[in-house]
Amino acid sequence: MSDLVEDLLAGKHSALARVITQIENRSPGYREIISDLHQHTGTADVIGVTGSPGAGKSTLVDKVAATYREQGLTVGVIAIDPSSPFSGGAVLGDRIRMASNAGDMDMFFRSMSARGSLGGLSTATTDAVTALDAFGKDKIIVETVGAGQNEVDIVRTADTVAVLVPPGSGDDVQMLKAGILEIGDVFVVNKADLDGADRTVQQLREMLQGRSGRPETGHHGATELADDHGSEAAGDSDTEDDDDAAETWNPPIVETVANRGEGVEDFLDALADHGDYLDRTGRREGQARERFAAEIRTLLREDANELLAGELDRRGGIDSYVDAVIERHTDPYTVVDEILTPLRDCLDE
Amino acid sequence: MSDLVEDLLAGKHSALARVITQIENRSPGYREIISDLHQHTGTADVIGVTGSPGAGKSTLVDKVAATYREQGLTVGVIAIDPSSPFSGGAVLGDRIRMASNAGDMDMFFRSMSARGSLGGLSTATTDAVTALDAFGKDKIIVETVGAGQNEVDIVRTADTVAVLVPPGSGDDVQMLKAGILEIGDVFVVNKADLDGADRTVQQLREMLQGRSGRPETGHHGATELADDHGSEAAGDSDTEDDDDAAETWNPPIVETVANRGEGVEDFLDALADHGDYLDRTGRREGQARERFAAEIRTLLREDANELLAGELDRRGGIDSYVDAVIERHTDPYTVVDEILTPLRDCLDE
Repeated sequence: MSDLVEDLLAGKHSALARVITQIENRSPGYREIISDLHQHTGTADVIGVTGSPGAGKSTLVDKVAATYREQGLTVGVIAIDPSSPFSGGAVLGDRIRMASNAGDMDMFFRSMSARGSLGGLSTATTDAVTALDAFGKDKIIVETVGAGQNEVDIVRTADTVAVLVPPGSGDDVQMLKAGILEIGDVFVVNKADLDGADRTVQQLREMLQGRSGRPETGHHGATELADDHGSEAAGDSDTEDDDDAAETWNPPIVETVANRGEGVEDFLDALADHGDYLDRTGRREGQARERFAAEIRTLLREDANELLAGELDRRGGIDSYVDAVIERHTDPYTVVDEILTPLRDCLDE
Repeated sequence: MSDLVEDLLAGKHSALARVITQIENRSPGYREIISDLHQHTGTADVIGVTGSPGAGKSTLVDKVAATYREQGLTVGVIAIDPSSPFSGGAVLGDRIRMASNAGDMDMFFRSMSARGSLGGLSTATTDAVTALDAFGKDKIIVETVGAGQNEVDIVRTADTVAVLVPPGSGDDVQMLKAGILEIGDVFVVNKADLDGADRTVQQLREMLQGRSGRPETGHHGATELADDHGSEAAGDSDTEDDDDAAETWNPPIVETVANRGEGVEDFLDALADHGDYLDRTGRREGQARERFAAEIRTLLREDANELLAGELDRRGGIDSYVDAVIERHTDPYTVVDEILTPLRDCLDE
C-alpha cells in the first residue's frame, strides 16, 4: 500500500484531493490505488443530484451538506460537469464554494470535469466515490450538470437519485423525457416560489404515474458486453430473494426554495425515507451488485478496446488493413478474424 | 465458395434473399459468405434515405427505384426499421411494395428489422449492401424509419444521404438537431403542396448555413475503439491528397410531392450531382475508407466483447465475481486484470 493511500485512510484531506486528481487524470498507478481502497468502502450513503443548469443544484447541495454537518455527519461533494473540458475545481463558483467550507475539515468539496471520453468520466466518478467512501465520509453527494445519457450514467453511482426541476421550464420536461425521469428516486421542484411551480408539480406527478419503481441499472452504454452470456448480477442474489416484492418506491415530489433554505428539511426527510426503503428491502445491496456488475463489464470493455488498439498499432495500424480491403485483397471480417484468432487460441489453451 | 454464394453471383434473386436472411439472423456461416462476396463489390452507388415516419420515404423511394429501372439500371432496396422487432418483410406495406415490383426481376426489395442490438442492425445493413453490391445492383437504396443515433449509423452505409422533411413539423426540427442535419447530402421537403412547406424550406436553409460539408464518419458508438492509437484511415490516404480542398458540398434542398411524382427528377439530379462530386473529389473512396476503418473497429469491438463474455462464462459467470467484490475480497479493477492478463501475456509473446 502506498503512502498516499495510507494518508487518505488516516483521514488527510490533502491525500484525498491528490487521489481524486490521479483518478481524474488517470495517472499511472490510479488503478492500484482504487484496488487498495475498495476493501475500506461500503459504509457511505451516496446521493446523486441532477437537473438542468440553473435548477439551483449547487445551492441546494450546499444547504444539504451544511445540514448534515450540523447533525455531526462527515460529507464529501463531487460536482461533475460532463460538458466542460475544464479541470480541477478552478472555476470561480467552485472556489467560492470551497472557501465557504474552508474552516470545516469534515466537509470536502471537489469538482471533476470531462477529460477524454464521457464513458471515462462515469468510471472516474465511481472511483472518486470509492475514494470518499474509503476516506470514511458518511454522506457523499454526486452533483451533475446537464442532461442526457451521460448524466444518467454518472448519477447511477448513487444509492439515491434526486432530480431538480425548476418551475415552468419546457427544457426540463424534455430532459425528463431523456431518461432522467426513470432514474429519479426523489423529485425536487426548486424555486417553488416562482410562478408556474404548482403546474410543474402537477406535470411531474402525471409523468410519474406512468412509471413504477426504479428500472434495473447495469446498462452503461450502447455496446454493453453481451448480457445474454451471463445472468444479470442482481436477478438471482440472495438479497434479492428477501425482497418484499409488493413494496415499490413511489418517488415523492418536494418543493424547495433552496436559497432561502425552505423545504430543505423536507428534502432530507425524503432522502432518509428512500435510504430506509433501500435498507428494508435489500435494494441497497441489490443496486450495489448491479453497479459492480456494470462496472466490471465496462472496465473489461474499455481495457479490451485498449488492448486491441495496441494490437492494431503493433500490426502496423489500421490504414494498411483498409488499403487491403479497398483493393479487395481481404475484407473486414477476415481482418478481424486474423487479429482475434491468436486471442481465441490463447483462451482455448 | 458455397453454392449459395455462386447462385447469388450468378444473379439469382432467391439466393440474394436467402443470404440477406442469413445476415439478418446472423446464421452460422454468414461471415464466410460476406468474406466471399466482398471481392465482387465496389461498383454500386449506395443512396441512403431517412426521415421521420410519415415523411413519405417509401413513396419517394418507390418512384426513384421505378425511374432508375426506366433508365435500364438495376436496383436493390433495403428498408430498415430500427424500432421494430418485426422481421422479414412480412408487414402489409412491404408485401404491397414487393408485389408491385413482382414482375420486374431487376428490382429487389427487402425489409430488415431490429433483432438483438441496434449496433448489430448497423452491421447487418452494411452486410446486406455488400450482398446487393456483389449481386451487381447498380443502385442500392437504404431506407430507414425513425431518427436518432441508430439512424445516423445505419444511413452512413450510403455514399449519398438524402434526408426527407415533411412541412411544418416541429418533430422534424428536433430530429434534425439530433444529428441527421449533419449527415444529409441532399434535403427533400416532401409533400411540398402542403401549408408550411415554404417555411420549412426556409428553416432548413437557415439551419444548413450553420454547417459546412459532411463530417468525418468512423464513430459508430459511444465506446469506439480508441482512435488515438492509430491515425484515421481517411486522413492520409493517397486519394485524399488529390482532394480539391477548396471544393465543398453545399446540400441542396429539393421540393417534391412524391405521391404525384412531382420533383422526383429534381431529386435524381441532386443525387447525381452529389455522385459526381464524390467521384471528382475522391471523396467516394475517402468515405469508403472511413467506412471500412469504422467497420473493422466495430467488428473488433463486437467480437472482443463476445470473446470476453464467453470467458466470463467459462470462469463461472459474473455473479461470483460480484459476490467477491461485495464481500471486499477483491475489487472490479483486480477482477478485470485477472481476466485480461492471460490475453495480454498471449499478445506479448
